[in-house]
Formats: sequence, C-alpha cells, structure tokens
Amino acid sequence: MAGLTTQSLISPDAGQEIYALAREIYPICRSITGDGVRETLDIIGRHIPIERKELPTGAKVLDWEIPREWNISDAYIKDAQGNRLIDFRQSNLHVVSYSAPVHRRMSLDELRPHIFTLPEQPDLIPYRTSYYADAWGFCMSRNQLDKLESAGGEFEVVIDSRFASGSLTWGEYLHRGASTDEVLLSAHICHPSLANDNCSGLALQTVLARALSNMKTRFSYRFVFAPGTIGAIAWLATNDAEASRIKNGLVLSCVGDAGGPTYKRSRQGNALIDRVMIHVLRHAVAEPNIIDFFPYGYDERQYCSPGYDLAVGLFQRSQFATFPEYHTSADNLDFISAENLAASYGWVTDALTILESDRTLINLNPKGEPQLGRRGLYAGTGGDKDAVRHNMAMLWTLNLSDGTHSLLDIAERSQLPFKAIARAASALEEHGLLAERRAREG
Amino acid sequence: MAGLTTQSLISPDAGQEIYALAREIYPICRSITGDGVRETLDIIGRHIPIERKELPTGAKVLDWEIPREWNISDAYIKDAQGNRLIDFRQSNLHVVSYSAPVHRRMSLDELRPHIFTLPEQPDLIPYRTSYYADAWGFCMSRNQLDKLESAGGEFEVVIDSRFASGSLTWGEYLHRGASTDEVLLSAHICHPSLANDNCSGLALQTVLARALSNMKTRFSYRFVFAPGTIGAIAWLATNDAEASRIKNGLVLSCVGDAGGPTYKRSRQGNALIDRVMIHVLRHAVAEPNIIDFFPYGYDERQYCSPGYDLAVGLFQRSQFATFPEYHTSADNLDFISAENLAASYGWVTDALTILESDRTLINLNPKGEPQLGRRGLYAGTGGDKDAVRHNMAMLWTLNLSDGTHSLLDIAERSQLPFKAIARAASALEEHGLLAERRAREG
Amino acid sequence: MAGLTTQSLISPDAGQEIYALAREIYPICRSITGDGVRETLDIIGRHIPIERKELPTGAKVLDWEIPREWNISDAYIKDAQGNRLIDFRQSNLHVVSYSAPVHRRMSLDELRPHIFTLPEQPDLIPYRTSYYADAWGFCMSRNQLDKLESAGGEFEVVIDSRFASGSLTWGEYLHRGASTDEVLLSAHICHPSLANDNCSGLALQTVLARALSNMKTRFSYRFVFAPGTIGAIAWLATNDAEASRIKNGLVLSCVGDAGGPTYKRSRQGNALIDRVMIHVLRHAVAEPNIIDFFPYGYDERQYCSPGYDLAVGLFQRSQFATFPEYHTSADNLDFISAENLAASYGWVTDALTILESDRTLINLNPKGEPQLGRRGLYAGTGGDKDAVRHNMAMLWTLNLSDGTHSLLDIAERSQLPFKAIARAASALEEHGLLAERRAREG
Repeated sequence: MAGLTTQSLISPDAGQEIYALAREIYPICRSITGDGVRETLDIIGRHIPIERKELPTGAKVLDWEIPREWNISDAYIKDAQGNRLIDFRQSNLHVVSYSAPVHRRMSLDELRPHIFTLPEQPDLIPYRTSYYADAWGFCMSRNQLDKLESAGGEFEVVIDSRFASGSLTWGEYLHRGASTDEVLLSAHICHPSLANDNCSGLALQTVLARALSNMKTRFSYRFVFAPGTIGAIAWLATNDAEASRIKNGLVLSCVGDAGGPTYKRSRQGNALIDRVMIHVLRHAVAEPNIIDFFPYGYDERQYCSPGYDLAVGLFQRSQFATFPEYHTSADNLDFISAENLAASYGWVTDALTILESDRTLINLNPKGEPQLGRRGLYAGTGGDKDAVRHNMAMLWTLNLSDGTHSLLDIAERSQLPFKAIARAASALEEHGLLAERRAREG
Repeated sequence: MAGLTTQSLISPDAGQEIYALAREIYPICRSITGDGVRETLDIIGRHIPIERKELPTGAKVLDWEIPREWNISDAYIKDAQGNRLIDFRQSNLHVVSYSAPVHRRMSLDELRPHIFTLPEQPDLIPYRTSYYADAWGFCMSRNQLDKLESAGGEFEVVIDSRFASGSLTWGEYLHRGASTDEVLLSAHICHPSLANDNCSGLALQTVLARALSNMKTRFSYRFVFAPGTIGAIAWLATNDAEASRIKNGLVLSCVGDAGGPTYKRSRQGNALIDRVMIHVLRHAVAEPNIIDFFPYGYDERQYCSPGYDLAVGLFQRSQFATFPEYHTSADNLDFISAENLAASYGWVTDALTILESDRTLINLNPKGEPQLGRRGLYAGTGGDKDAVRHNMAMLWTLNLSDGTHSLLDIAERSQLPFKAIARAASALEEHGLLAERRAREG
Repeated sequence: MAGLTTQSLISPDAGQEIYALAREIYPICRSITGDGVRETLDIIGRHIPIERKELPTGAKVLDWEIPREWNISDAYIKDAQGNRLIDFRQSNLHVVSYSAPVHRRMSLDELRPHIFTLPEQPDLIPYRTSYYADAWGFCMSRNQLDKLESAGGEFEVVIDSRFASGSLTWGEYLHRGASTDEVLLSAHICHPSLANDNCSGLALQTVLARALSNMKTRFSYRFVFAPGTIGAIAWLATNDAEASRIKNGLVLSCVGDAGGPTYKRSRQGNALIDRVMIHVLRHAVAEPNIIDFFPYGYDERQYCSPGYDLAVGLFQRSQFATFPEYHTSADNLDFISAENLAASYGWVTDALTILESDRTLINLNPKGEPQLGRRGLYAGTGGDKDAVRHNMAMLWTLNLSDGTHSLLDIAERSQLPFKAIARAASALEEHGLLAERRAREG
C-alpha cells in the first residue's frame, strides 16, 4: 500500500464522484431518526464498508435521551377541487421535520399558524424542524402561500407521519493506521434535500474514506456519519475510549458551494489541526475566512464541549447562516458543483497529508551553512521563481532544524507552503544533511 | 440589606444629585491646605459620615513634609479710581494658589511678571498654583489685562492671604463588606472653582458612597477625598496596612463633561480593575479612550508608585490636559451636566457590580451540551435578538465553565456584556447545570 | 581613557573620513581570495592595527574547503582592429569573478553564452561571480553589447587570470574592554568596485574601530573584515571559543546610500542588539525598515546558523537586492555620500553606547513620588518641551526602577529616547534617589 500523499489521494475525478454521490442522496427525506438515514447509509455503504450503529428510543446518552423514531410517507395540502397545492412528493422541505401526523379539513385561518414562509425570499421554501416538541407544520414559498390564499375555501391537510419506538442510526468507518491515535472526520446526516448542507459533506467524506482505505497511514482515521447534535452525543456517549484517542479532527459541512473557504478553529484555538487547516487555506486563497471557536454551529459544539475539548475544527466553504441559500430550497444541486467539491477535497487532503508527514528533523551540519552547491542541491536561479523558492526552502529548513521546529513550524515561519518545505527536507535528508529526530511511528 | 447590583445603586436621580452637590461645592476656594478643604468636607459630610483626618505642618510623610497652611480672605487689583478691576470675590481663580500676601501700589510694569493670561483663549482665566515656592500672582483673562493696560497709572495690589502652622486635611469613608479586601475610590479636593476638575469627582464619589452604605457587599470600599499629591502621600504614609488591603481602585476626576469616556490603566496594566473598566466602557460606547499607564496625571501616580504598585486606574470623561476648558474658568458649571454625571456614575457602578459578582462556576454536565430545551431554558429565537443573545450567553457559559474561566473571562471571550453572562449563569445554576467552584466569600 | 559615549565616538568629520576611505579602496579588484583582499587590508591597516589571518587552499572549514586562490591581471575583448571594446582596466566588474583564464579568437556567437547584461538597465554593467565552478564570463552594459554586435567579425577574448594554491585572507581587530564578552562587527571584503556593497561597510567599520581603540569600554569589540560566506565560515571554524563570547553583533553592509535605514533582526528575534537597534532607528526616522530574520543575505546567515545562533543582526541603509543600483556599476562613489555614512555611523555608535550603558537601577524612595521640586530637579515647564521630556523621563525612571527594568526597558516602555532616560537616571542618581542594583562590570 502506498503512503498517504495528496497526490495519492487526489484523483482527477474526485469532484465528479463527490458530486454524483451528493446527487444520489439529495432526494432522500432524512431527519434525526428514521429510514431516510438508513437509506443514505446504504448508498454510502456501496462505496466504503460502513458500520451501521443504532441506539433504541429511550436510551440515555449523556444529558439526552434517544427520541422516538419519525417516519413520513406523504403529506399535502389539497384545495376543494382536490389539487395538491403543497405536495411532499415535490419537496420534502414542505413538511416541518418531526411533524406530528395530521389529517383534517380546515380553513386557511386555522392552517396559517402552521405555515412557514420566507417573506423576503418569495420563491424559496424554508427548512424547519420541530424536534422534541409535539407540533406540525408546512414550509412553502411565499408564492405558494399566495396560491392558497387565492384558492380559498377549505383545505384537506395531511401529514402521514409516524412516531414509534425505534432507533437512532448512524454510520462509522475506521481506517486503521500505524498509530491508534485517531483523526476524526464527521458529517451530519439529518438534513433532507439540502445539497450543500449536507449532502456535500457526506459525499466528500465518503470519497475521502474510500481513497484512504487503500493507503498505509501514520494515524487511524474515523469517519462518522451521524445526525446532528443527538447523533454526535450518542457517539460520544458510547465511545469514551475512542474519543480519548482523537488527536485531531474536522467537521465537514457545506463544502460544495463557491464561497469561503471557511475554517472555524477548535475550542483549543491553536491545535495542530487549526494550524494545519489555516496553513493550507492561507496558501490556497488570498483571504480565507478564519474564525475563532464559538459554541454554536455543527457537531464541533459537542466534540469541543469542555468535558472532551477535542481538537476538532469546522471546515466549510461559505460559513453557515451567512448565505441566502442557507436552509432554503435554493440549497439544491445547482448550488454545489464538482469543481467546488474538488477544491474542498483538495484542501482537506492537503491538511491530512501535513498531519501525516509533519516531523522534526535535525540539521547534521548546524554550524554555518553546509555547502549546497558542492552537492548539486543549490539551484541556479536565473529568474526561476521555483528554484528561488526551493533554495529558500532548503535554507529555512537547515536554519530551523534545531530540534525545536517541525516542518510545519518551518513552513509557518518561512511563509512557504508545507509542500515546499517537505520537498526541501527530503532533498537535504537524501544528502545526509538532515536526519529524523526519532523514528517515525509505524 | 440588599446585595450590590447596578440596579440597586442606580437611582433615576443620581445624575441630578451629583450635579447639585458639585454645584454646592463649586464656589469654595480650595487649595492643598486650608479652610476650603474643611468647608468642602463639611458639605460632603451631610451626605455620608465622613471621617476627617489631619496631619500638622512639618509632619514627615514619605519623602515629603506637610506644608504651612494657606488661607485667603480677599484679593484685588484696584485702579487709581478705586475700581476693583480684578476681584477675588468674582472668581477665586484670579489668585495663584498659595500666593504670598501682598499689599502695595505698583505700576503695570512692576505687576506684569505676576500676571498670567491665556493669550490664545482671551476670555478665559487660567488656573495656576505656586505650591512649595514663595511667590504670588494674579490670573486673568487677556481681556482683563487689556483693561489694566488701558487704565494705566498706579494700581493697588492686594492679596490678603496667610501662611501659618496648621494642618493638611482630608476625608475618608470606609464601607465594610464581607471581606477586608478593599476597593479604593479616590478624588482630589484641592482645586478651587473648577467644576469638572474636580467638583464632579468629589460629588460622584459622595453619592456613590451613600448608595453603597446601605448595601451588603463582598468587598470593603474606601472613599478618600484628599488634596492632590500631598494628600495621597499623607494617606499612604499613615495607612500602610490599609494600602496593602487595596485590591482594586479608581481615581475619579473630570467625570462630568461630555467627552470620553477615558480609562487609564493601572501600572500593572491588566489588573482586574483594568479588565473590568475596559469591558464596561467597550460595551458602553463605540470607541472608549483606553490608555496605558504613564506616571503623570492624578493620584494614581502615588498609588501606582513602585513601592505600592496598587491596581488603581483613572476614570475620566475627557482625558486631562486634552480639552480646551482644562484648568481655565471655562471649566464651570455649564461644562458639566447631570446627564454626563449619570452616565459616569452608571459605568462606575457597572464596574463595581462586576467586581462584586465575578466568580468561577463549573459545568456539571461538561460532556456534550446539556439539553436546554427540555428544561425550558432554550428560548425560541424567531427574530428575537435578546433571545439569541441569551442562548449564546448560556452556550458560552457552559462551554467555558471548566474551572479556569470566571464570568468576566467568559464575557471577554464571548464579547457579550458581563450582565448577559451573569444572567445566563444564574439561569443555568438554578437548573443545576452549573455550580460554584467554591463558596463565595461572605 | 574616556568611557564610550556617542559624543566621544562622533567626530564632525566621521562621515568625510569614512567616505575618503571607501573611495580609496573602491578601485581594487577584490574577490573571495587573492591580492585584492590583501591590498584592501593593507589600506585599512594604516588606520587600525589589523591582524591578518590566512588559511591555505584545501583547508577544511566546517562543511567547506578553502578554494584555490584567484588573481587577475588583465582582461579585454578586442575587435578586429585591436580596439578594446571591453576593458577590465575600465571596470573590474567586466569580468565574472573567479573566471577561468581564456585567450582565444572567437565570433560573437561563440562569445555570447559568456556575456551577461542587464537588458532593463542598458547603461549598467552587472556584477556576477562564478565561485566554485569552472567557468568564465564578461559582464557589460547592454549598450556595450550593441557595439560588439555592430563591430562584427572575430574578437580577441582575453582573461588573464590565475588559479593557484594559496590562501583565504581576512583581517581582524580586537578592542579589549573590561569584560571578555564581545560585540562583533563584521563586514564582507570580497566585492570588487561596488561602493555601497561594501566599501561603505568596510570603511565605517574601520573608522569605528579606530575611534573605539582609544576608549575604555565595558565590552570587548571584535572587528572582522572577511570574504562573504567562506570568510565567515573560516572565522567561525577557527574561533570556537571566541564565537561563544559574542553576546551581540552587527553585520554592516550597504551603509552609505540614502535609503532605509534597515535592520534585520537576529535569528533570536528579540535579542538585546535587536531591541537596541530598533530603539535607535525608531527614534531616528519615522519608519525604519525593520525586518525579521530570514536565512539569506550576508554573513548573519553563518553567525545565525543553528549551531551558533548568535545575537547578530544586519544593519543597512537600503535593503540588499531591493534597490536598482544593487550589484551593478551604478553602485559607485556617487551612490554613497559622507552625509549618509555619517548618519549610519551615528546610529551604530548610538547603539553601542546603549549596549555599554544600559543598567538596572533601584528607586530608593519607591513609596510615592519623591519630591523632585525640593531638590531642584523638577524643571518649570512653561512651554519648554525639553523640560517636559526631562520631567517625564525622571518620572518614568522612578516609576519603573523596581529592579526588573533596565534603562532600555524604561526607554522602550516610555517611548522616550534612551539618552533622555539615561540623563534622567544620572540626575536622580546624583541626588541619591536611585542606586545601582549591582556594581557594573569593570
């Protein structure tokens, strides 16, 4: 098996593959429990040997309890003529997630408290949930509400949903590396037809896991596909030992749009994963959106709760809740692209490559500079910017390889890309000018 | 007795009361010694049971010696017709403070070396002193000097002042709290008819002391009303043990104008009082004037001398020596207002409230987020900014209550007001989600 | 002998003397070995008793080996008519340094790969070297190349150079102070007729050494005049004990032009020499060019290699490789001036004066401010900015002389010039208000 490098992870088709998988799982009506999650995991399971985990309704997980399972077959609002003015089969966003069943005739006035629109975005259907509350509702565009108002008369209002004792379901895949220290990748699987949030993250994580599965790695990699909040809490509640082995991690969501990139630091603030992601993104784009940790967002909230305080950050393109398509029907398959997904995949794999290959070397000729020219290492630089950069990378690596600076430290200090420093280090190592401080794990 | 809260300290009339007291003491001719100080303390003493302290002329205090007492009955410059062209009864700023007595006829040429004006502010009388020097002088507006020049002839020049063995006088009020640790409030009492500098500070301090006197507090509060420099030095020289109990403090001067607010850090630079005042002012106005310590200004110079190094900052509105009215007759009762004084009073009481109520709590459910919704703690947030802020305050407080962050730490990190964090902490504590790290003092 | 002060080091003629010496050594054809270096050291030796050191060809120095000695008598390109179109006697820049000998007739096409020009600076001759490679070449202006092209026909191409076993040569001067701790001044001596780079640095260093030679100093001062890279490496290889005594140092190059000033920090980043140079330059000009260490440039590369990590920074006017005259024939005697050299000399001597005189004093009256007025120390300040600054310098010095702040610390904190703080400290010391923490060395 090959060692992990960005080259080995990147396939020219990665963006297309991620997009295709996101498109495949997009139509499914997911919620925090129910068959939508299982169906999604089945599809993912065709790509990687995912392990499905379940906890029964009523099980205690940390401060929480697994809720009843929710499933839905159909829902609609019919006018007096029997026309489905609102139709769950057209968009699963039409039903507030976890809506109680209803089958009644009612006037628009009775119905109105159960209707949610976005007055300032009249074409879009909002996405709403009502977990842990006994309620029901319909989401629709402002224009659809206008039609209901024009129609008048009584409406047949149906939500054919079921609450029952069942399970909370999540999926996991563990790639074992030389070390039992783990890198966590985690994506939420509870949103229905929203492409960026989070078909994109689920699909990227799947393609990444499959690529890694063929590699020989330094660290072990754990991929978690779990419903937001309750899923992460269920995983933490049942994986105390595993959680303690997570040394770095990323939550992945909204990774397919053209915005950002955004990186939200872990609670620790300057953990290795934070430094690595910030290094990668700063060399990738002029002004990445680097934000400090705050206790709101995705499942980094749980991984970074004070009882765990894991080094887990959040990677996104556009920052959640800041783009107009967020939590609306405009977060569809046109909002994400293979190109954007490929870029996101590239940055994540760049980061994992740094985690895998960062190390501390020792300059074996620390007094003065060694004579690089004699060894053919010092490139002539007649206007060749790459040669200049390679020479500077060698000089920086020699200067800072005093036992207290890792390659990432040197890359940060020199403001050169990690790849350039790693390449310089390899060249110097081959010529006996640098040596590993201690044997690498594995 | 009620515990100290900003609510309990603020009365709707605080600004009016402070202004009224400032107006009452404004006409008195104060200097570093003499009856003006005693008269001012008498008036303050009607509001709080102030203790008057005196040290005799010649007493050694640290590196200094108490000077002779200076008093003045009258002063004037009369023209040949007997008109008082300059009249101490019109403004006590006309006489250089600590002027030696004089009663002579002289020409303007003889008089001129004893005359001080502000050529660039021709309507204003400057404020000048001549402590510790044997001299005398008159301050007047440029326009008044013009009149002397027009009058010509000989002038009768009289300063009816007296130097005598006497005392240096200051006032003190101690409010005892549960702890003998003290908070110092200190205002200089040596300036004559200057409203902002420092009738405002004396009056604010008095009204604050009276409000506190009815409260049950965590800390003890010491209010010092003393002449600048020599008064603070006299207090320090005679209160070694008390000085060592001062854990935080503020010098108050120029708190009634519309400028600033200004906070000058203590010499320690990031003491609790510094963090508290900066937190309060940053949440109060867009750009408070936060300045580093420097060894010039008011009595923070003495409290922050290296032998004490107390955590005492300076609170002002406009920074001293930066506004055109500073040390002139324009620093009058029109330059300060009840409204400005009320704002200053509010910020100081906000700060004391934080000192009183800051504490470190422990999240009792540190693994994952506790389920706030089940407890009715998580507010629905349909566009309600207060609810959003309260939710965020709870999430921050839970996330950072790991035993290493006080409520102020959390407020600083979250950029939320201390009040919001304290309110969130109380709600969480009531529901058993947080607990005190250790019993609070008192 | 007088103690070192800036006053004692500065002579009104320093700039003129440095310029005159730079002019004297400018015509010599120097390289990393050979008679040009010896001739230059002979001239310097007329000003200070310099010690000449040599290591033979083939000697191992750290990772390097002393190369063969290179000398050159003449070089030219003659046209068919025998006219010297390119003539080494006109400019020694015409020959690539360390060119192998050649004497052949050839066409322009054969010659062309050996010709170097600056197409964007058509009037200028570039400066090129070919150390450690068997090659030869001519540097010329674009206009001169045009003439070769017009001439056509065959050219007589002659470089009358010789490689032979010989020596690497450098010069050293050690001024012994009270302490064996050393301050290093180092200038490269290997460039031919380039006035700023580095006749300026060699000359400044010489005049400085001569001035210091008459002084009684706290530290010892070592002046090294050595070929770039190989010279510094040779010195380090043969001076292990001396290197360990270097506590601070400066590499001097390009100190005569009108740009900058530039200071490049030592690898340590905030060593005493870094703080001192930055303090001096920030008080000298509005925006000095302060740059972080990077492992490229002059011999700070060697002194700051990780096996030594000496506190040695680089002082320049314009930063190397950033000005159009750099490494061209425009770096001539018109590019530098006595005035610029005098300013550079002043800043370096200011820095050495701070190194010599920084010390930590103790406030003997740390409680409250001492009464400066009684001692005649407190200047009246009627608009006198110098008096204000002196008063502030005294107050800062008293406030911070708590045993943890040196005079430089106080100057940095107060943003006052070191000179003002040192003057205040002396005044306070004379009046018994400050005392030395411990006896000064020597």
